[in-house]
Amino acid sequence: MTPKSEKLPVNRFRDHNFTHELDSVVIEEPLEIRLVRKTGNQVENYSVAVTMRTPGEDLALAIGFLFTEGILHEPADVILQECVTYDNRVYVKLHPHTQIRPEQFQRNFYTTSSCGICGKASIEAISTEVAPNEYSQTIQLSTQQILQMSDKVREAQRTFHETGGLHASALLNDQLQVLQIMEDVGRHNALDKLIGEAWIQSDQNQSVRSNMSGKILFLSGRASFELLQKCAVAGISTVYCVGAPSTLAVSTAQQFDITLIGFLRQKSFNIYHQNSQFQLIET
Amino acid sequence: MTPKSEKLPVNRFRDHNFTHELDSVVIEEPLEIRLVRKTGNQVENYSVAVTMRTPGEDLALAIGFLFTEGILHEPADVILQECVTYDNRVYVKLHPHTQIRPEQFQRNFYTTSSCGICGKASIEAISTEVAPNEYSQTIQLSTQQILQMSDKVREAQRTFHETGGLHASALLNDQLQVLQIMEDVGRHNALDKLIGEAWIQSDQNQSVRSNMSGKILFLSGRASFELLQKCAVAGISTVYCVGAPSTLAVSTAQQFDITLIGFLRQKSFNIYHQNSQFQLIET
Repeated sequence: MTPKSEKLPVNRFRDHNFTHELDSVVIEEPLEIRLVRKTGNQVENYSVAVTMRTPGEDLALAIGFLFTEGILHEPADVILQECVTYDNRVYVKLHPHTQIRPEQFQRNFYTTSSCGICGKASIEAISTEVAPNEYSQTIQLSTQQILQMSDKVREAQRTFHETGGLHASALLNDQLQVLQIMEDVGRHNALDKLIGEAWIQSDQNQSVRSNMSGKILFLSGRASFELLQKCAVAGISTVYCVGAPSTLAVSTAQQFDITLIGFLRQKSFNIYHQNSQFQLIET
Repeated sequence: MTPKSEKLPVNRFRDHNFTHELDSVVIEEPLEIRLVRKTGNQVENYSVAVTMRTPGEDLALAIGFLFTEGILHEPADVILQECVTYDNRVYVKLHPHTQIRPEQFQRNFYTTSSCGICGKASIEAISTEVAPNEYSQTIQLSTQQILQMSDKVREAQRTFHETGGLHASALLNDQLQVLQIMEDVGRHNALDKLIGEAWIQSDQNQSVRSNMSGKILFLSGRASFELLQKCAVAGISTVYCVGAPSTLAVSTAQQFDITLIGFLRQKSFNIYHQNSQFQLIET
């Protein structure tokens, strides 16, 4: 497994005294995401974005990013076995039959991400691509189960306790089993890795969106617009976050009918939006 | 003052019961940063970046961003009184005599921000522009004063308690007086606003960097590479963060000789790097 932290010397003040110790610090390095296309005998590749991330699951990060930014659409767009990661660059190999034109996204991600300048235009841009209310599966949870969720995820986290510096995204079923967990110094990266991994593991004939139905996303931090936007594209119907959501996160949850629960604490939580597939049951 | 939060309906679970309440939620909206140049009778303007931010202090955010990304260099580059903010766009008016060519940064910020792909190249790119060790003023603090810093900043925060969803950046002197505080849904934005405000308030003949000497930066969250990079460009010599730093944040602090203290808690903290201008004194 790629190391996510390294030991660095630190001068620690505790109990009125300084001690020189080694401390685990979360690793942060850049990753360049490149799209590769073969046309005839020519292989071209285009740099699409650079992100600061914690190393590991780099292909999942790249795929999740490209999918939730609307560049990739379905598993058949990519030849997974020909994707490579080398020297902080990940090369995502497009299928020759895909209609995607990588040159149009070259070094232009920031514009794509927040197109139309105002958030409203950006939300409308997704809603043309994303059919809302596709969630086929019901999620039934008791308040007791919701309050236990943070503990379940924490048990599954390996690196967080070590460094205290990583955001986590986890996918759970309605039995509160942790199906997948990803950690990164950036919260967008942790979610991209989670969604990218679902893409990588999906059947080529199955959509990632249908896989997400009936599952619960857990975010260790706050919920921003961009995170909810990624959820809308990936078809995630239920989102829990330990921290606060922003106004635009709430309105995106409403628009795409995503159940959004925030401020998830030991004994309390807030429901900002609840869809009809999400049912609170008595214990 | 621009509102930073709005009241939204929420279904709150607490003490085993649900209640419908209004909850303060932090506002998140996009801001487009545009550079404006007048040549002869022609006025051109170029879109440089779009960022998701909490409204307010938009000009400070734009200036801080453009300065710490290496696009603006000194207060004389900008005609402050001709800058305007309208409809989530901020127009930064360049002085006609400046050598800055806005067209080269157009919609290309992401590349600029993480040039050279690997973090090392990016660090080297700053070090050619930033002369290290320019800090002229000594900072003397006792461990007791360091432990009190979070409380001092919290007293000065207005919005954080209300929503729980905002990152804060604060500038303090070595008497622990809070000179400036900025809050935003994004931690980079909070720091950009702080540095931009220092630029706006600075004498046109004085560098922002010289103003930062002898002051302490407090970050409410974690310290990433990009935050330390901004500190290096702005000449900030002392950084405290409540959360964890990343490896690249620590190595950037070392390279630019920035005192970096992390995990600042009620009774403990960690010193990751200490420069010679920073002196711990006995109480």
